[in-house]
Amino acid sequence: MQLTRFTDFGLRVLMYLCTPAPDQREQAVTVAEIAERFEVSRHHLNKVVQFLAQQGWVVTTRGKGGGLALAQPPSHYRLGQLIRTLEGDLPLIDCAEPPCALHRRCGLKPLLDEGLDAFFAALDAHTLADTHTAKTQQVLVKLQRLSRPSV
Amino acid sequence: MQLTRFTDFGLRVLMYLCTPAPDQREQAVTVAEIAERFEVSRHHLNKVVQFLAQQGWVVTTRGKGGGLALAQPPSHYRLGQLIRTLEGDLPLIDCAEPPCALHRRCGLKPLLDEGLDAFFAALDAHTLADTHTAKTQQVLVKLQRLSRPSV
Repeated sequence: MQLTRFTDFGLRVLMYLCTPAPDQREQAVTVAEIAERFEVSRHHLNKVVQFLAQQGWVVTTRGKGGGLALAQPPSHYRLGQLIRTLEGDLPLIDCAEPPCALHRRCGLKPLLDEGLDAFFAALDAHTLADTHTAKTQQVLVKLQRLSRPSV
Repeated sequence: MQLTRFTDFGLRVLMYLCTPAPDQREQAVTVAEIAERFEVSRHHLNKVVQFLAQQGWVVTTRGKGGGLALAQPPSHYRLGQLIRTLEGDLPLIDCAEPPCALHRRCGLKPLLDEGLDAFFAALDAHTLADTHTAKTQQVLVKLQRLSRPSV
């Protein structure tokens, strides 16, 4: 049981955008920068960022000096909600593929749904801000410093 | 975020074996029967059943009249424990593939672990017996009746 790579990247982008505050950077964060820092394909990350923008979670500004930023403060993003949306709200088991003989009369399904609700409830008790611990912030600041042109 | 097909089949086999009591059947349940009832490959199901036997969850008897049965009453199997074992106790995100720049300094990982613990705790509140609702039992009894040779 693993989160999809799409969700994984979506969360990494959102965490990356937590720091630093825009006015402390010379240039806006770009998809290219994040792709390079996390060593993932820019093409793949573009799709993820497009989704994040569609959800209203990030704002993108085009042109010279343009880039990405969080649309809201990190504390506004409930982790459970982020993951549920990124995952596409899929059920834990696809009862129709292959078609299960117990489909629609299954005593397991409601219990799995209960477990999944507990999972998201535990995550909703936290926000994106809670992922931004001191250690995480240290690493992110270092990663972002790599982007500054040397003078 | 989905359970693996291996876990899916493992649970289906265990549920199938909940009913009926062995003395109410003319023949023991076989892998071939379950494979046919759920329309899945016998080869695939053999691997699953092998795993279930290794865990001590089912007993297999060889030879004429041989087959499968639960090793313990259904109420002895905690759902969370079954799923955790079938899933191989994998983390929700593989931080090493692709290697994440935040690895070991990540504020997200402990929160995901917390969510996963909540998921398994909710499931451990139930046993295999709880999956065996009246509706599920009805379907399973019908499925098993299909196996009886016509007289």
